[in-house]
Amino acid sequence: MTTTNNTAPGLGDDFLKCAAHTEPAKLAGAIAGCVREKGRAEVQAIGAGAVNQAVKAIGIARGYVAPGGINLIAIPAFLDVEIGGEERTTIRFIIEPR
Amino acid sequence: MTTTNNTAPGLGDDFLKCAAHTEPAKLAGAIAGCVREKGRAEVQAIGAGAVNQAVKAIGIARGYVAPGGINLIAIPAFLDVEIGGEERTTIRFIIEPR
Repeated sequence: MTTTNNTAPGLGDDFLKCAAHTEPAKLAGAIAGCVREKGRAEVQAIGAGAVNQAVKAIGIARGYVAPGGINLIAIPAFLDVEIGGEERTTIRFIIEPR
Repeated sequence: MTTTNNTAPGLGDDFLKCAAHTEPAKLAGAIAGCVREKGRAEVQAIGAGAVNQAVKAIGIARGYVAPGGINLIAIPAFLDVEIGGEERTTIRFIIEPR
């Protein structure tokens, strides 16, 4: 659950990275922590495996914060990033209380 | 983009099915149509490939309805369904205006 600093117009500078091997429950804990601390979280995923883990993590995080009266929602955004000289389209989930 | 009738406690009876080979733009059109008609849409996906296409479709659908003043959000929910005698966990996206 690395928090990376990166400039992305329209999106936050800080986001959590999700990979295909990321454990959803662990990422869910990081999402819940971000939401409690800063009021929102962003998760970036590249590829189907990573997107799938991110979605599971968001579902689990909803359960973590629901008892505190927070109804978490997700907004998927597309973001082009350069990785190793190649342009890749990533999915950035903006996660906020409704 | 099949609309299937199925009983799912806590979730709607009608939902759009998303597969790994579903075209995101086509599903996005169906989501936008559902939202305009009924005020909400549900999309069910099983497996990483299908979940990934569903997320892309939601992102695209946001662009379809945004000019109409609708800010679409997604809530991922887990749902156990029986397929061919086997229990599978599906992701059901509840898609609503914020």
